[in-house]
Amino acid sequence: MTNLNHCQTQDTQDPLRPLRELFTLPEGVIYLDGNSLGALPKATAARVAQAVQAEWGEGLIRSWNTAGWIDLPQRVGDQIAALIGAQPGEVVATDSTSVNLYKVLHAAILIAASAVNTRAGGLKDLKKPRFVLSERSNFPTDLYIAQSLCQQHGLTLKLVEPHEISAALTDEVAVLMLTHVNYRTGAMHNMAALTAQAHAVGTLAVWDLAHSAGAVRVDLTTSQADFAVGCGYKYLNGGPGAPAFVWVHPRHANAFEQPLSGWLGHAAPFAFTPDYQPAPGIARYLCGTPPILSLTALQCGLDVFSAAQALAPNQDVIAALRAKSLALTDLFIALVERRCAGHGLELVTPREHALRGSQVSFALETGGYAVMQALIHRGVIGDFRRGDGDTHRDILRFGFTPLYVGFEDAWHAVEYLKQVLESREWQRPEFNQQQAVT
Amino acid sequence: MTNLNHCQTQDTQDPLRPLRELFTLPEGVIYLDGNSLGALPKATAARVAQAVQAEWGEGLIRSWNTAGWIDLPQRVGDQIAALIGAQPGEVVATDSTSVNLYKVLHAAILIAASAVNTRAGGLKDLKKPRFVLSERSNFPTDLYIAQSLCQQHGLTLKLVEPHEISAALTDEVAVLMLTHVNYRTGAMHNMAALTAQAHAVGTLAVWDLAHSAGAVRVDLTTSQADFAVGCGYKYLNGGPGAPAFVWVHPRHANAFEQPLSGWLGHAAPFAFTPDYQPAPGIARYLCGTPPILSLTALQCGLDVFSAAQALAPNQDVIAALRAKSLALTDLFIALVERRCAGHGLELVTPREHALRGSQVSFALETGGYAVMQALIHRGVIGDFRRGDGDTHRDILRFGFTPLYVGFEDAWHAVEYLKQVLESREWQRPEFNQQQAVT
Repeated sequence: MTNLNHCQTQDTQDPLRPLRELFTLPEGVIYLDGNSLGALPKATAARVAQAVQAEWGEGLIRSWNTAGWIDLPQRVGDQIAALIGAQPGEVVATDSTSVNLYKVLHAAILIAASAVNTRAGGLKDLKKPRFVLSERSNFPTDLYIAQSLCQQHGLTLKLVEPHEISAALTDEVAVLMLTHVNYRTGAMHNMAALTAQAHAVGTLAVWDLAHSAGAVRVDLTTSQADFAVGCGYKYLNGGPGAPAFVWVHPRHANAFEQPLSGWLGHAAPFAFTPDYQPAPGIARYLCGTPPILSLTALQCGLDVFSAAQALAPNQDVIAALRAKSLALTDLFIALVERRCAGHGLELVTPREHALRGSQVSFALETGGYAVMQALIHRGVIGDFRRGDGDTHRDILRFGFTPLYVGFEDAWHAVEYLKQVLESREWQRPEFNQQQAVT
Repeated sequence: MTNLNHCQTQDTQDPLRPLRELFTLPEGVIYLDGNSLGALPKATAARVAQAVQAEWGEGLIRSWNTAGWIDLPQRVGDQIAALIGAQPGEVVATDSTSVNLYKVLHAAILIAASAVNTRAGGLKDLKKPRFVLSERSNFPTDLYIAQSLCQQHGLTLKLVEPHEISAALTDEVAVLMLTHVNYRTGAMHNMAALTAQAHAVGTLAVWDLAHSAGAVRVDLTTSQADFAVGCGYKYLNGGPGAPAFVWVHPRHANAFEQPLSGWLGHAAPFAFTPDYQPAPGIARYLCGTPPILSLTALQCGLDVFSAAQALAPNQDVIAALRAKSLALTDLFIALVERRCAGHGLELVTPREHALRGSQVSFALETGGYAVMQALIHRGVIGDFRRGDGDTHRDILRFGFTPLYVGFEDAWHAVEYLKQVLESREWQRPEFNQQQAVT
């Protein structure tokens, strides 16, 4: 049976262990919330200071050329491309996940409508797609953005449970919009299979990689996905509110709409012509002037993946990270179920490796918020997601970023969770005070 | 006749002179491009380092509560409100100017359509507004965003010259969309008069304050403007690509649409409910997770205005800044016209104070790009905007940020410009090489 000593040995034998030294982790903290906000890479502070003082302060406006600010969204995008099965030149880092989702869903809806018009010819009786299909427990911002676009385009947002998606995929669906790994449960969809099924009925597939980029293998190109967006501040460690990213399959390149037709997505932004001409390819998904300081921090987060690759130049670094993530989460699940038995924790994350991402979620009938607050007070930072009072239960989330979380961390985290539950210290008033952000 | 000695005396007597010490300005540089990218406040580097190391690195996810990240867009917005004639709670700092313009123009178009429907009742012959009206030389991103929304809403973007706006304002115009101070010429519109004229024909007025917030008096409330957006990285000194801001007149509060219905604009973001319910008031114009590092830098830029106010607690600091800006630009115009006469420079900025912002633009028949490159090489940083080959000539732009530009700067800038023109050094090949960003 696994004990602390085994966990320490696993850390010692972990070839990725040196990566932890690339991060600043506070004394006394076990950080299991990298799925919400990734930890700070040590290189970031100096690099951001350089961007502030040398590039902005000394270089001033000249840095758009001399410091390469102008193509930073593309250069950062190229680093992300390597993590999501895309090619250089296919990704830009820009705006937020929500804004990028608006762009791609708008484009996908128009492509779907145009395809139907082409097929229909003059026939009036060919059914027009009426739905955007998604998962009921998709992250709310995805659903909200989809609601807005459905309203604008006369479509209906159809929400189903994960096991109902396949049956709901008919030719009445214009776009299938899913988040690859669910933010509540950590369940992972089969991107290639669902995309193929969508394409078989003439539906486009839009994927949100917020909880998968940097955490699990993502193969956008081989999955034949149509559009993808994702987040810079979770597993990519780009800092609070880091710019997000957006990708379009090359088959749509130069044939997708950008509703947010800002000047930096123009074919020639510095020609200052009054008519919008979209830039070729993914560059058209740029919009306004990019937030250079935040982009610079994101770049440092991505540099850690290059460092990971450098540890084992001939190996598949994503496979190595994924193997460690699964070992960590397997261990955590086993330890919680063994050591915290009898306290009502129920695993809601699928056990099967192929069906989950890099987080572990437990439902708890009552007191979930307070339990997490008490656990954070002891230095184990996970987070809490309240159920909507209907079908979803309150959830304790534990994210495992294999870049900086170790096996001994998992051991101690469970030990503290056990103590919180056994002592019932979570019932203290201070752990039951609601905060602005949960 | 003004000489260097007079300019030095003016600096000595300038009550705002101490503010210059709040900025990092490189040795040997006279910076006249704060209308493109404001200079670095000295406090920014340490504050951003704190946000990176203490808030992100040590605080991690807890900083959403403990460091107040969650309401930073509102707190920064309140600081901006004080500069644009708005009230606390009416402004948020978020996204880019382009994205914010998309939000407000979408909302304005819907309000205009709804007003017509109300007036029309059952009558089919009441004309529906058909146009969004703007200025042909408005900043391109404004025109591009308007084109996208016009296409989506079946409207036409009508572009006229500045002197034609009044005549074009008929009840066929749904929305008048103008930039308060023109990015090329520095010409300033009369916001109150044009807004009143728009309202008289049932048209809404949307104002872009990119070149006016922090530089000239802006009175959104008393002007009765409907919507406004603006830029954080020009006269507000928020850093490259700093978040922009957005304002809505209180009469529209709770009755305006947010097409980019992201989760942070939800009435209860952390309830994670599947249905979008917009937050009351301006908070609904938040969308995705805010870029905290860039927002923190913007806050430091705004703190400089508080410092300016602290220099003269009982005075109108915007009036003081405006008076200095006009004195600087008057001086610069007079010096260029006297000392650079005969080189073909033609002032395109209106001379009349009420008709211009805080920049001075000169047209030059040929060689404008190279002249500016040669001038930058000598340490005087302005910038160049190419004409579109049709009605607009190439322009040399000189921005005067009264927070850190002095009278002696204006003197030396003109002296260097004179030397560049007289020596014809701008004809050298290195000054004629095109760069990515001009």
